[in-house]
Amino acid sequence: MTDEKLDKKGISRRDMLGSSVKVVALTGSGALAGLTGASLLLPTTAKAAGSDKAVVAPGDLDEYYGFWSSGQAGEMRIIGLPSMRELMRIPVFNRCSATGWGQTNESIKILRDGLTDDTRKYLDKHGKVWLNGDLHHPHMSFTDGTYDGRYLFVNDKANTRVARIRCDVMRCDKITEIPNAADIHGLRPQKYPRTGYVFANGEHRVPIPNDGSILDEPEKYHAIFTALDGDSMKVAWQVMVDGNLDNCDTDYQGLYAFSTCYNSEEAVTLAGMMANERDWVVIFNLKAIEAGVKAGDFQEINGVPVLDGRKGSKYTRYIPVPNSPHGCNTAPDGKHLVISGKLSPTVTIIDIHRLADLFQDKIKPRDAVVGEPELGLGPLHTAFDGKGTAYTTLFLDSQVVSWNIQKAIDAYAGKDVDPIIDKIDVHYQPGHNHTSMGETKEADGKWLISLNKFSKDRFINVGPLKPENEQLIDISGKKMKIVHDGPTFAEPHDCIIVRADIVNPDSVWKKDDPMWAEAAAQAKKDGVNLYADSKIIRDGNKVRVYMWSVAPTFSMEKFTVKQGDEVTLIISNNDLVDDLTHGITMANYGVAIEVGPQATASVTFTADRPGVHWFYCQWFCHALHMEMRGRMLVEPA
Amino acid sequence: MTDEKLDKKGISRRDMLGSSVKVVALTGSGALAGLTGASLLLPTTAKAAGSDKAVVAPGDLDEYYGFWSSGQAGEMRIIGLPSMRELMRIPVFNRCSATGWGQTNESIKILRDGLTDDTRKYLDKHGKVWLNGDLHHPHMSFTDGTYDGRYLFVNDKANTRVARIRCDVMRCDKITEIPNAADIHGLRPQKYPRTGYVFANGEHRVPIPNDGSILDEPEKYHAIFTALDGDSMKVAWQVMVDGNLDNCDTDYQGLYAFSTCYNSEEAVTLAGMMANERDWVVIFNLKAIEAGVKAGDFQEINGVPVLDGRKGSKYTRYIPVPNSPHGCNTAPDGKHLVISGKLSPTVTIIDIHRLADLFQDKIKPRDAVVGEPELGLGPLHTAFDGKGTAYTTLFLDSQVVSWNIQKAIDAYAGKDVDPIIDKIDVHYQPGHNHTSMGETKEADGKWLISLNKFSKDRFINVGPLKPENEQLIDISGKKMKIVHDGPTFAEPHDCIIVRADIVNPDSVWKKDDPMWAEAAAQAKKDGVNLYADSKIIRDGNKVRVYMWSVAPTFSMEKFTVKQGDEVTLIISNNDLVDDLTHGITMANYGVAIEVGPQATASVTFTADRPGVHWFYCQWFCHALHMEMRGRMLVEPA
Repeated sequence: MTDEKLDKKGISRRDMLGSSVKVVALTGSGALAGLTGASLLLPTTAKAAGSDKAVVAPGDLDEYYGFWSSGQAGEMRIIGLPSMRELMRIPVFNRCSATGWGQTNESIKILRDGLTDDTRKYLDKHGKVWLNGDLHHPHMSFTDGTYDGRYLFVNDKANTRVARIRCDVMRCDKITEIPNAADIHGLRPQKYPRTGYVFANGEHRVPIPNDGSILDEPEKYHAIFTALDGDSMKVAWQVMVDGNLDNCDTDYQGLYAFSTCYNSEEAVTLAGMMANERDWVVIFNLKAIEAGVKAGDFQEINGVPVLDGRKGSKYTRYIPVPNSPHGCNTAPDGKHLVISGKLSPTVTIIDIHRLADLFQDKIKPRDAVVGEPELGLGPLHTAFDGKGTAYTTLFLDSQVVSWNIQKAIDAYAGKDVDPIIDKIDVHYQPGHNHTSMGETKEADGKWLISLNKFSKDRFINVGPLKPENEQLIDISGKKMKIVHDGPTFAEPHDCIIVRADIVNPDSVWKKDDPMWAEAAAQAKKDGVNLYADSKIIRDGNKVRVYMWSVAPTFSMEKFTVKQGDEVTLIISNNDLVDDLTHGITMANYGVAIEVGPQATASVTFTADRPGVHWFYCQWFCHALHMEMRGRMLVEPA
Repeated sequence: MTDEKLDKKGISRRDMLGSSVKVVALTGSGALAGLTGASLLLPTTAKAAGSDKAVVAPGDLDEYYGFWSSGQAGEMRIIGLPSMRELMRIPVFNRCSATGWGQTNESIKILRDGLTDDTRKYLDKHGKVWLNGDLHHPHMSFTDGTYDGRYLFVNDKANTRVARIRCDVMRCDKITEIPNAADIHGLRPQKYPRTGYVFANGEHRVPIPNDGSILDEPEKYHAIFTALDGDSMKVAWQVMVDGNLDNCDTDYQGLYAFSTCYNSEEAVTLAGMMANERDWVVIFNLKAIEAGVKAGDFQEINGVPVLDGRKGSKYTRYIPVPNSPHGCNTAPDGKHLVISGKLSPTVTIIDIHRLADLFQDKIKPRDAVVGEPELGLGPLHTAFDGKGTAYTTLFLDSQVVSWNIQKAIDAYAGKDVDPIIDKIDVHYQPGHNHTSMGETKEADGKWLISLNKFSKDRFINVGPLKPENEQLIDISGKKMKIVHDGPTFAEPHDCIIVRADIVNPDSVWKKDDPMWAEAAAQAKKDGVNLYADSKIIRDGNKVRVYMWSVAPTFSMEKFTVKQGDEVTLIISNNDLVDDLTHGITMANYGVAIEVGPQATASVTFTADRPGVHWFYCQWFCHALHMEMRGRMLVEPA
């Protein structure tokens, strides 16, 4: 829609940003008021007339897997690229009505096992599992600087957790709550030699321990940087830092991790958080930290070694960068780290090869900076094509800017060169961006995604709540070109784009999958063959109902329990065929779970509603799918 | 993928259907074994080479709203057509981590208020709300035979409910549990003069009342047809029928409703349900039923008038049709009702104008039948172009067949004409289909959707759980043409396609919206102006925290409560700008809710975790969104 059209509707980008500007003015931040003022004169996104690069015809396959966060929706999503079609939702921190995630015994175990004792006690007291999450950053495991197709790791800011998804079955298998930290934000796996560590930023500063003994004394709060072991999903070590932590990344040498800090002031109010002209990037020296752990140079808090990485520590260095840095992205060249300025129109380029000297105090922190090009207003994140070009989202300008890394370095060194190659308007307020394979040494420079926060006027109106807008940009030519607008439900915060040949999931489950190890062990104790027997085992008022399914029948047509019995249904799907998923819904009991081909799943509930209750298969399986059902007869107490 | 290619991968349609055939053979149904046997020789879907009809370029708008069911995912979805992009998810029967549906006090009220006393007691005993649903059929309210943009109505098979969605704000505002019935399946709103009634089929037969006094005596079970008042969402009346109920539809005259019955045998086993050669369609005479209610010719059961509509009743007629009919679709001509055969290769055309004579016993039930064309294997549902052509999905053939209604009638009358116009291969196992505006008098013959149950090999592999596949078919020409394959998460059972000009949602909420009437009433009692005051009201251990937000700040930077307090957060969003949604997450308390522009939302939790807990805005709102946060200080008890 052109500005003229917008004006006719009585709305415009000008109005849209109006209230924000007003508020910022109220908070008294002169620096930011200046920035948002400039954002009032933005053009709208141009149409990509006639481009069909994103069209994948019926029957053709996508070339990339996109692994997409869903922000506060709590799930992970798989998108096909370049078609931008959503292929699957993977429940992680959310409750999923379709799969029974958050209800099956198997998922509850995963949601519960990795929590701290404190949290488990709190949830048990209330008969709860967490049913929400705020999943920002999905990243795949690496081997030797590129994706290896083993796992995906994701954070939960809302309840301070990190989760892992198995790429063979595309299901979450581990969730770990991070002790001592508060509200995990930035997350990245180690790139080299392999993952290895998964680094996680505790964004918010809190007292440690946070037990109420310290309350309104912000000067006693701390932020915590965490390294998990990606294989065991246990916390390996933590580092206490100054400031709070935002985004992070790692190098290609296995030596360092990096985190941006947007509140070096350690303030608890908006004005306070923006007071300083400069914040910083924290550099973590992995070898030094490992040596420190070995030497016992830590406090053990809540079972975890916590090292002191505050200013002056040998474990960290603090490199000053302009006000409120946000994005933290290592270039595929293995040499450059790009920090995006957010409240500064610049990005800062750090030479990773100079960090050894920095840790040996041969140079000063700012000596590691080799470039600081001015790119536009509100730089948030930077992506790479692997050929020397960087792509930075400009939140306030609602643009993506492409620029040459070497030219930016040359300009900083005094040469008269302009690093900026191209700018395009994207839709309103781009946050993260990502290029195909762009965070690996195999960055291929084909596709760029800009994840835009506002979609007003860009799609037919769906009410007060609007989708986000993810734009697919062709970067294979010299000029960037938008080829697709992708609306999405809240809030694909970040994504990665992985070459299809790297990802090779199974199509049916293996019968000995550890996912249902507990049900299998119980069946063994009960003398039950999960895939052949139909049995009811009574154990006081606990009743275990074992049945299997082959389309279009369950192996039991009915079973009888007594009112008040605790009933566990254990269902095994004998169908061997790709895509032949079954499920079982126990009607009017709020019970519904999915059972994949060759899988077993179980669910427990109390049968305290007497009468005839039909159970049925809710995943379409056969022409006689509707007839695939049976009865639970509940005798009154 | 061609069959040859499939064979190379060691999989084929043959294998895919193999296990199903085996099982059906085991169940001893000769009739069905015959049908599935034929399905082994299916072609695969052809590519739509070069078609760009479904491409909506960046910046262009879709022409239709698609309202999509999500089956066992429990939500409703809005899709843009022809781009087939998902524009929004509307939580209904599910728990939504993003919006807080199932957690906000406002949504819990909607999820709870319309339940039966029995269910409410059961849930309260366990401290639960239903967090799952099986949403099959979304339909818009009608006025004078076409959509009127007021409401959408949807069923829940899993927990026997009907819900309503307000089209002005695209949010669910009422959920009614249907007493006496079990497991609501088919659902349709009255088309004329207006909605009016919303008809809902109780699919499964159960004892009435279902209190455990009758258990394994299936002959004493009953199925119930329900008419709700779409304005009040209260049950108006119910009719007890023979057989169980499947899909339903209504006429364009306001006289009748229709339901298919696939188990006239009233059996509880698969073999039993398929024993008869013929099942039936039940015709409900609305005027006679209304007169019966007025005359008191009913039993009141659980507060609802239940009329006896079993065979021989004046309220119903039973028209025999071939074995296990499924789809039930009234043509836009207002005259013809098409019943799809499922286990018969035929559809049955009923002349609605003959039903008056049928109710007066001037003709026999089968005399209302005016056509019964043989179309192919496994006809499930039929859609219309408003110009005399019908489109029927063939589940076993994996095809869509287009056919001429008048020619089918002529052939039945003895003329030597072939009603079949065209057949195309669609992807595996199509269920529902729908045409643009096709269930209204304004059917426009532009688009057809085929909702296919299996997607194997059609998209890059995402693990054992595959998406469904919804194919968009251009029906504007003589030959049908597939222009887009749309993968979707489980399980878009059915959909409607509505012209964009009919749907006009608001872009911001009105401050006096009834959605948060209770919070507004409480605020009034507490002397609080929701959009201007920041106040903490203490009432014993109940604490109400009123705050408002304007990007990027909450009106309170911190508040203090005592461990064990029951805290209610009431947040009002003062931002007036389109798309400027806020939210509040209370970290490490499992609390996260959405607050739309100009809306108020509230959530209640027990503050029994002492310490410093950050709350933050989780819907991106501003460059300083991450700084939009504050602290809850919980003093230890």
